[in-house]
Parts: sequence; structure tokens; C-alpha cells
Amino acid sequence: AQGEVYLVGAGPGDPDLLTFRALRLMQRADVVLYDRLLPPGILNLVRREAEHIYVGKEPDRHAVPQEEISAKLVRLAKEGKRVLRLKGGDPFMFGRGGEEIEALAAAGIPVQVVPGVTSAAGCSAYAGIPLTHRDHAQACVFVTGHARSGGGLSLGWEALVQPHQTVVIFMGLGQLESLMHQFVAHGGDPALPAAIVENGTRPNQRVVTGTVETIAGAAASEGIVGPALVILGTVVTLRERLVPHGG
Amino acid sequence: AQGEVYLVGAGPGDPDLLTFRALRLMQRADVVLYDRLLPPGILNLVRREAEHIYVGKEPDRHAVPQEEISAKLVRLAKEGKRVLRLKGGDPFMFGRGGEEIEALAAAGIPVQVVPGVTSAAGCSAYAGIPLTHRDHAQACVFVTGHARSGGGLSLGWEALVQPHQTVVIFMGLGQLESLMHQFVAHGGDPALPAAIVENGTRPNQRVVTGTVETIAGAAASEGIVGPALVILGTVVTLRERLVPHGG
Repeated sequence: AQGEVYLVGAGPGDPDLLTFRALRLMQRADVVLYDRLLPPGILNLVRREAEHIYVGKEPDRHAVPQEEISAKLVRLAKEGKRVLRLKGGDPFMFGRGGEEIEALAAAGIPVQVVPGVTSAAGCSAYAGIPLTHRDHAQACVFVTGHARSGGGLSLGWEALVQPHQTVVIFMGLGQLESLMHQFVAHGGDPALPAAIVENGTRPNQRVVTGTVETIAGAAASEGIVGPALVILGTVVTLRERLVPHGG
Repeated sequence: AQGEVYLVGAGPGDPDLLTFRALRLMQRADVVLYDRLLPPGILNLVRREAEHIYVGKEPDRHAVPQEEISAKLVRLAKEGKRVLRLKGGDPFMFGRGGEEIEALAAAGIPVQVVPGVTSAAGCSAYAGIPLTHRDHAQACVFVTGHARSGGGLSLGWEALVQPHQTVVIFMGLGQLESLMHQFVAHGGDPALPAAIVENGTRPNQRVVTGTVETIAGAAASEGIVGPALVILGTVVTLRERLVPHGG
């Protein structure tokens, strides 16, 4: 019998932010594929008998190519297994879930996709920074600071420097100084409030605030190492007025 | 004793996409405030003894002003109640959650904010349309098509018409034709693929696809009445290649 694949978003980190559908499929898996972006503690909630396969892509090391991960999902499903592909956040938001289900669809493998709480929503709630607000931001832009393999960043800077919106940068810590320089070089306001949320929604969450001009220095002096989400916009100023929220 | 407020995102519609934290707080409430954007079926999962208060804002009718809702939350909490403010999707993404917790923080009321699966993530997963994809979109913009009270739309069109990104319009159905006209007037591609997801993640979900030029007409002829999410971008074309996903 042919197996199937569950492409599941595990949410931003707090296991309490798993969905019921996610946990049920996690309890059904024969094998789980995960990478370094999966929040710690989540893996313990997968069915105990499931085989664990690490397909992590370290940012500065030789990585398991995406094509190889997709091929492995196809092969395991063809062996009749219930294959869990578990990802932090939401699988269709910078999770490369699209590439993986393309390969599965081409091979005729049944897939269930389970959306998750994005790390943007998680960090927003647990750090007290609304992503939209009538007086501050009528739009929110999600971008990744992670370079496209073999090329540079391809961000639409004209879009990012617009006023009255919030910009959320996923995986932007490694190149934060350069990103903030470019933001200003393209007409962005150096005094725009900025925040970094490290280990968002986890017990060790830390929030550092500043401006576009100061945030990279603040992150360095606070020893922020990630995983971290960067939030730019005047909504960051609301944090001071709001009650901080624990997990 | 003073009460507290739980500002909870109930997700996009499928009750199976509630988080564990959301359901636990829903089971603890003395009173629940909800509006017309709350997905049907979710309210049945609130503690049975909880008092129900509808604070719905109908789009074309006299609405309960936001200030009145916030004041009601404060008053109920001061009476010592556990007050559940339950919202569709995520409370900090066009949910006006920011305004509500500002009022609560000013009154010294303890608040817990629970992020939810946004309707964008839910519709994306259940309609088979990844919001980002290396070959299609390195960014995703969330905007609301709902007019600011007392004013017109204040969308940053320059940002929205950029290539290599996905645009998600919340509450855009009512003004879809006008929005699509403006998109093209600001330099957007009339042939850009577009999709509408109605009742996303629910058993009666419907997806209509077309282009920026045709989508308003297609929605009208298919009788789409909402709630609906609009997705613009070449990622819409991936849907044809992907296995459709049930709930």
C-alpha cells in the first residue's frame, strides 16, 4: 500500500501553540523529517515509535539540498510509510513547503498540509507588538533575509520602505547590519522603531528594541544569536504601553 | 478579585486548527465577546456556562464602535470575570487586538494574548497555494481592503504592484472590482494570476481563480459572497499542480 505525507506547521515554539490537527498527525507518523528550524521540545510530541531523520540545513555548512529532501519524502511514502514533514511556523511561509509538495504531487503521493501559527504571529503576541493597528500600520510585509542559494538577496526595497506598514524579516539576523544599511539607502527612515524577538514564544524569549539605525548594534551587544525575527515599524512603540505576556 | 481578559485567535475556521492554548482558555471563560468574523462552530467549543455577548460589526450597518467594545472588556474584567475576546484568525493581524489591549493595559487589566493561525495561512494550505516559493515570491504582503472608518482606503499601491511577491487582501471582496482597477492603474499587471478563497478551511470552502483583470467578474458570476480572502501572485498557478487538500 502506498503511504502518504503530512506537511505540518508546528508553530513558533511554544508547544501549546500546536493545533489539534497537527498533534493528531504527529501521533500517526511512521517517520519524521525535521530540520534545525524546528523549535526544541516539539519533536518529543511525535509518536514515540517514529523514526527520526534530520535534514537540517546549517546556514554556513554543506546542506542537504532541497531536491534531496523532496526525493526522500517521495521514496519513504512509496515504501508505504506515513511520513511526517515537520516544520517550524507555517509550512507555506518561507518553509519551502511549496517545493516539497510539488515533488510529491508530481509523484502522485497523497499529501495533507496543516497550516501553523507563523513565527510572526507568535512573536507579535508574546512580545506585545501588534503587526497591524489602525493608527500605525494598515499593511504588513513578510520577507526573508536569507539569501537565495547561489545569488544575493532579491528584496523589493521600494516596497519595504513605504510608510504605514509593518515589515517582518524572517531569518534576517545574520545579515542584519547590511539589511538595515540598505533599508536606509533606499529611502527608509533610520529612526523607524525596530525590534528583534529571539526564541519567540519560548521560555527563553528575549526582545531587544531600537531603531533601524541602532538595532544591529543592540543585537550584537546583547548577544542575540537567534533564531530571531526582526520587526520594523511604529507598532514597536506600542510594546511599552502593553502588558508583557508570558507563555 | 479582579478578572482578566483572554484575547484569543480562533484560527481560520476549521475547529481542528484551534491551538491547545486557545481551547484551554475558551474552557475557562465566564463570558465571551465575539463578532461576525468568528468562524461558525467555534462558539460551541467555549465553556457552556459562559455568557455570550455579540459585538458584531456588520459592514453596512450601524456598528458597535471599537471604543465601546474595549470599554465593555474593561468593565467585565473589573467585575472580576474571566473575559474571553474571541476572534477569527490571529488577533494582531487586522483583528484590532492592538486597540483592545491598549485599553486594557491602560486600565491595568491582566491580558493573555493567544496567536492563531491566520486566515491567510489557512486558505493557503487548504487551497494548495503556497504564499512564498523560491521561484515565485520571496515576500508576502498582507493588506486589508476594508475602508478605514470615515476615510478611504490607504493602501501603498507602489508596494503592492512589485513583482516576485504575493499579495493577500483581507476583507477585500466588497470592493474587489475597484481594488483591481486601482492595482492596474498603479502599474500592476492585469494578467497576474489571482484567486479568491471563500469560507477557507471550512467544509463549504470554494476557490475561484482568474487574473487581476477577470477575478472580480468571476467572483460575481460564481456568486461568491464571503467571507473571502483574495490572493494575487504567480503562486496561484501552483494550485493546478498540487493535490487539493480536504479538511
